[in-house]
Amino acid sequence: MNLKPPIIAIAGSTGAVGTELLCLLDENAFPYSHITLYASTQSAGSTTIIQGNSSTIQDIANATFDDVDIVFFCTNTAIAKTYIPQAINAGSIVIDNSALFRMQPDVPLVIPEVNVDVLTPDTALIANPNCTTIILLTALEPIRQYISIKRIVVCTYQAVSGAGASAMQELRQQTADNLNGSEVHPGVFIEPCAFNVFSHDSQIREDGYNIEEHKIVEETRKIWDDESIQIAATCIRVPVMRTHCEAINLTLDKPVSNDDLNIIRTLVSNATGVQLVDDATANQFPTSKKAENQNNILIGRLRLDRSQLVSPTHSRGIELFIAGDQLRKGAALNAIQIATHLKNYH
Amino acid sequence: MNLKPPIIAIAGSTGAVGTELLCLLDENAFPYSHITLYASTQSAGSTTIIQGNSSTIQDIANATFDDVDIVFFCTNTAIAKTYIPQAINAGSIVIDNSALFRMQPDVPLVIPEVNVDVLTPDTALIANPNCTTIILLTALEPIRQYISIKRIVVCTYQAVSGAGASAMQELRQQTADNLNGSEVHPGVFIEPCAFNVFSHDSQIREDGYNIEEHKIVEETRKIWDDESIQIAATCIRVPVMRTHCEAINLTLDKPVSNDDLNIIRTLVSNATGVQLVDDATANQFPTSKKAENQNNILIGRLRLDRSQLVSPTHSRGIELFIAGDQLRKGAALNAIQIATHLKNYH
Repeated sequence: MNLKPPIIAIAGSTGAVGTELLCLLDENAFPYSHITLYASTQSAGSTTIIQGNSSTIQDIANATFDDVDIVFFCTNTAIAKTYIPQAINAGSIVIDNSALFRMQPDVPLVIPEVNVDVLTPDTALIANPNCTTIILLTALEPIRQYISIKRIVVCTYQAVSGAGASAMQELRQQTADNLNGSEVHPGVFIEPCAFNVFSHDSQIREDGYNIEEHKIVEETRKIWDDESIQIAATCIRVPVMRTHCEAINLTLDKPVSNDDLNIIRTLVSNATGVQLVDDATANQFPTSKKAENQNNILIGRLRLDRSQLVSPTHSRGIELFIAGDQLRKGAALNAIQIATHLKNYH
Repeated sequence: MNLKPPIIAIAGSTGAVGTELLCLLDENAFPYSHITLYASTQSAGSTTIIQGNSSTIQDIANATFDDVDIVFFCTNTAIAKTYIPQAINAGSIVIDNSALFRMQPDVPLVIPEVNVDVLTPDTALIANPNCTTIILLTALEPIRQYISIKRIVVCTYQAVSGAGASAMQELRQQTADNLNGSEVHPGVFIEPCAFNVFSHDSQIREDGYNIEEHKIVEETRKIWDDESIQIAATCIRVPVMRTHCEAINLTLDKPVSNDDLNIIRTLVSNATGVQLVDDATANQFPTSKKAENQNNILIGRLRLDRSQLVSPTHSRGIELFIAGDQLRKGAALNAIQIATHLKNYH
């Protein structure tokens, strides 16, 4: 048992997720005794202030990871592929935000509120799930504790931040150009992103679903350890900076009533990582703006699915609408929460 | 049979839908022999140019509707309630864009591509359906001609234009304020609309669905003359000017294969009012921007619902993503198309 706070490093510390991770560390989200920041050769040499201390960003090409207890990887998959084995060989525990190892059977894929029990004292590499999956499953956990879910139809309203800091800049620039009547020049996305809604930019597979939609299905099955869960996902980008919303239609294994919904509301109110925002009278529900910079996933619009009624009072389905910060719980915060569960540092 | 083009009038000619109707008339979408424009007392007296002729906007308070063959009502329900009976009493045929008469059993609710047969030579009042319903049912018509639809789960990505011209101005102003770092001041909507996603602002009923969602269910049942169709709708606003997108999950009465999807693609390509935009290789699908100012509803992301597979090749469900101009086919164009089917003027 090591009671000293760990020595940590961030690989990809200048990207959108790396920057958010630094914000969270600056907010004391995770105690550490020393931190090293890595980035690409282009970004190396610049300095950043964290908890009042100046830190110079190192070139990851020179990283040895010697004596580093935990490395948070917030890089693309190419960088992750090169440097994660080095970090593990040097004895570090790696928490990787890329998609590279998520579906590898021996790598735990973890949302602490859902399946923290898969972590063991021997775990050297943990994968952080896709942002859309984290937000979905964190919201569904209190419901799933109460009733078995058989099928999920989910439509997403995804922020551009999932495509990185340059996509956020592209949305800002294109929006300004659009308001000024200037021509817009798509770069990160093939579609214009200002004042536009478009299908997620990941590649479409043979079955007609894109890779983002596949991630939701495959990661949910792994995290829930349930190959039988049926999921139909539609992933859509909206002109929003950093919050994903998701409209969710659930089919349950038995009919529920409004009394069950009230029990679920209480469970959501008492659960960690989620917050009930469900005031029908005031028309107050989760929105992108309300979830921005928040740690919790907001849950609302809870109702019996009127298309699956089995009687006037009971339905085999429920619907809900959720919002979560893509950079925070969808990425950086979840990685930090995983780190707090690493037994060696408790 | 009256072969002379009709004398027409527009009530509410300065609002978002009225303005779009004028654009369409200016594009020769509908032949007329004379036009009178009405608006509220505040807007009366201003002039507009239509097909090269100047027209002074009249105060609707002074309208008699004498000798007017067809009046397009693009007003709120209060104005519609006061003046539509006057227009009908004066012998005009009224096409009303408000929700006032839509569910009245003796008033036809018409999408020409779907149910134009309900019009009779005696029809004096026709209701234009809700924009979200028009866009949904126009897109589904070629599919419904091929296979019976049992259940629809639909999530919308709705433009602000549905809340009128002032909402479009609010989105512009708030977006500029947001980019400048100024405070935003919600007015039309209770939520900020710039860079935000929020539940539709209509009132929530006791069952947890808002009025916009109820409209989709009730209007679809009337237009399809099918009380058995099951619909679960989630209506959401996105920061987009004038196009609604909809993600649709259909449950069919028998399983379909990819061969059926290809037949549906051909039917969509040959149908009126819709356009197939479904290139998986190039990741080209319907978007808000592509549908802007277009008459057709764009249809893409057609795929077998992987959550309703009954075999490796067959599914009981299909999914699709559509986009349509809310002001055009969602309102003004549909009204004009109804007028072209009025038998007395053909």
